[in-house]
Amino acid sequence: MEETGQGAPREASVVVVGAGLSGLVAARRLAAAGVSVVVLEARDRVGGRTLSHTTAQGDRVDLGAQWIGPTQDRMTKLVAELGLSTFKQWYDGKKVLSLGGTLTTYKTSIPSLSLIGAVDLGITIQRIETLVKEVPIEDPLSAAKAFEWDGTTVEAWKRKNVKTRGAKAMLDTAVRAVFAAEPSELSLLFFLYYLRQGGGLMRLTEIVNGAQETRLAEGFQEVSKRIARALGEERVVLGAPVRRIAQDAGGVTVTSDAGTWRCKRVIVAVPPALAGRIDYEPGLPASRDQLTQRSPMGSVIKCVATYASPFWRQAGYSGEALSDVGSVKLVFDDSPEDGSHGALVGFFMGKDARAMSGKSPEERKKAAVDSLTRFFGPSAAAPIDYVDQDWPAERWSRGCYSMVLGPGVLTAHASALRAPVGRVHWAGTETARVWTGYMEGAVEAGERASDEVLAALG
Amino acid sequence: MEETGQGAPREASVVVVGAGLSGLVAARRLAAAGVSVVVLEARDRVGGRTLSHTTAQGDRVDLGAQWIGPTQDRMTKLVAELGLSTFKQWYDGKKVLSLGGTLTTYKTSIPSLSLIGAVDLGITIQRIETLVKEVPIEDPLSAAKAFEWDGTTVEAWKRKNVKTRGAKAMLDTAVRAVFAAEPSELSLLFFLYYLRQGGGLMRLTEIVNGAQETRLAEGFQEVSKRIARALGEERVVLGAPVRRIAQDAGGVTVTSDAGTWRCKRVIVAVPPALAGRIDYEPGLPASRDQLTQRSPMGSVIKCVATYASPFWRQAGYSGEALSDVGSVKLVFDDSPEDGSHGALVGFFMGKDARAMSGKSPEERKKAAVDSLTRFFGPSAAAPIDYVDQDWPAERWSRGCYSMVLGPGVLTAHASALRAPVGRVHWAGTETARVWTGYMEGAVEAGERASDEVLAALG
Repeated sequence: MEETGQGAPREASVVVVGAGLSGLVAARRLAAAGVSVVVLEARDRVGGRTLSHTTAQGDRVDLGAQWIGPTQDRMTKLVAELGLSTFKQWYDGKKVLSLGGTLTTYKTSIPSLSLIGAVDLGITIQRIETLVKEVPIEDPLSAAKAFEWDGTTVEAWKRKNVKTRGAKAMLDTAVRAVFAAEPSELSLLFFLYYLRQGGGLMRLTEIVNGAQETRLAEGFQEVSKRIARALGEERVVLGAPVRRIAQDAGGVTVTSDAGTWRCKRVIVAVPPALAGRIDYEPGLPASRDQLTQRSPMGSVIKCVATYASPFWRQAGYSGEALSDVGSVKLVFDDSPEDGSHGALVGFFMGKDARAMSGKSPEERKKAAVDSLTRFFGPSAAAPIDYVDQDWPAERWSRGCYSMVLGPGVLTAHASALRAPVGRVHWAGTETARVWTGYMEGAVEAGERASDEVLAALG
Repeated sequence: MEETGQGAPREASVVVVGAGLSGLVAARRLAAAGVSVVVLEARDRVGGRTLSHTTAQGDRVDLGAQWIGPTQDRMTKLVAELGLSTFKQWYDGKKVLSLGGTLTTYKTSIPSLSLIGAVDLGITIQRIETLVKEVPIEDPLSAAKAFEWDGTTVEAWKRKNVKTRGAKAMLDTAVRAVFAAEPSELSLLFFLYYLRQGGGLMRLTEIVNGAQETRLAEGFQEVSKRIARALGEERVVLGAPVRRIAQDAGGVTVTSDAGTWRCKRVIVAVPPALAGRIDYEPGLPASRDQLTQRSPMGSVIKCVATYASPFWRQAGYSGEALSDVGSVKLVFDDSPEDGSHGALVGFFMGKDARAMSGKSPEERKKAAVDSLTRFFGPSAAAPIDYVDQDWPAERWSRGCYSMVLGPGVLTAHASALRAPVGRVHWAGTETARVWTGYMEGAVEAGERASDEVLAALG
């Protein structure tokens, strides 16, 4: 590894910062067009917020992004092109609902609340879906109430519009599940726009016909690995955190811990919060810089507990659980396709992730297993394997799944999200025009940014 | 200037990052206790968000922090110790209120709205002052409604509680004036806590008996200059942006563009948003890192227009103006104490600052002079001097006056604001326990951080 700033800079037409899915898709597209490109990655691995792990039992589990679903056409095409093997998320059986300390089960999309609670939840969902449709996907700021909605939080909307404790708790859990944040952190406009990009609240929260429909046998990190392998080692440099991007009249000098590159254009394919930590010369315009100060990452720790068999299936449970108490408030079946072992994937979300980040894996395991045992009984008490990923503590992500915009940010800074700054272009799922926050958005953004660069290079 | 990482590191017991007021006060206190200290400053000047400028006419004007007031005892003592000359902010005469395109004047604290508007404004102020008192200054999270208040914005509170257009506009202007942000950006809890720290809404917004009471003939940057001069050139290193802070069992290695220092303790005396852009080894705990992602700086451009004389005084005006339209919505008399020239200081705040940041000084001058002419007539149309400071574009501040917390941040991350991380301590007015956002808070925070370090050094 070279010392920063030493030696003559290497050359490429384009430098991509970040070998996550978005950056690699951009690089692949540039390479296919015959453009010389190098991808600089801070970590010693590719894949960014996709991270696939092989358990002691030999099962591949996703500690990062895990599902694709309908209307995610780019991802569907990409996994097919790469020859990867999809299978359906397991959903058959009763779902567990834990509300106010009471466990119930249900089989439809709408959990078994009290009659009044169920009606209230139905009304709430319908109201949100109606509001979502009022946000134009091409320009959320043109919604008639854009400024009113960006002036308040999902929490404040909930307090005003949702009456029953059950429906409130369900909305809280849905928000945490989709955003890895508390309803208090979210601008109502950003919330609606994010849902709009994916096709609505039910589309984002469902398994069947929803964003949790399809898994990948090889795990989704494999998508990035295969793209990187095709690009070749000389075009994907690991252990190369980018520290400085200096533009001048003739090009750009990109300084990383693994050396310096000189290029014509740069694509920064990391979240705005991390992009803001790079030193730019000249400094970024205030609108872009202030956006990077206002686009924090969500808070989530993902964990997978493995069992000898998917014992809950035999008992008629789907493995899905939703709760308003406990450290882990959302669970899905995570068993391998052939059911040779059982696995449950759980999420510490929002305030629960913040409470458990930095704790020992043992402490988190205990908290997770406590939740799983509450949902699925004593058989869940002794997993044969446990693994988790503390995304907020992860130095080169600093949170997951994606950025979480508070009030006042979208209306003030939306125009800075994708606008190139001189020779610097922005990718990453945060900049997507569809399915932002998802792998589909990462691909769309990588394609869009590489198209910008191709047009600029002529 | 040395190359990064080259040569043997220099040594000091304590490195202070940032030669703003807070860092310099900390360094002064450490030096007085006989501790070897070095202050590393990114800019080629000291003073941070204080910046005093001498006009072509020889008048000293403050393009950064400009006033101190009652209960700011540390600053009062400090300017006296340093032998600096205070004088009272000019306030005699009629104030201008521009509301919905109509200009009126008033002489008291409460502007001349319609009768109903005035009553509504009075009720609003009284309500806010009552809420402020319900926030315990030692622990804002222990307020009975802390979580509810941190779940909503000042904008949403206003829409619900303030009825008349005039009172709403006055509240908007007060929020912009105090926070350099729009009401939509602010958590209601953060808003109340910030006011509580300074003594309430009227204390923060008033001249007489308020935070705009007293100016400094030499300009407030002189405070930092004199402290730096006393520390000496070898202890205050300019042009030294700190890039990396690496802790190990024996101490800390601080890497800057002007070389590397080895020390026992570090005080980071820059705002959290900028502190988050330093590379830490080991990485910061998630709670602290996520705070730095969630503590953006306010948006303000400050401008000063100079005239041959303070012509508005002769016409019976105080020079103070408040408006709900135009680029500059807040103005004060900024003439030198002897009135030998006239000057007006104006603020582009919140969305107006964002709209004008990065524009040419000529464009901003035109917008400012348009506003001043609306308020004070054609005599304001041709200033003999104009100067401004675009704080959001300023690379080593990236906004002013201070951090602006949105909903959900204080309740989730308050504990990370001051808590040392190993050998790294946090100063800066954002970490203050009184008068956060003000020079008084900067001093309090510098004293507190240096006391922590003295205790740790034994």
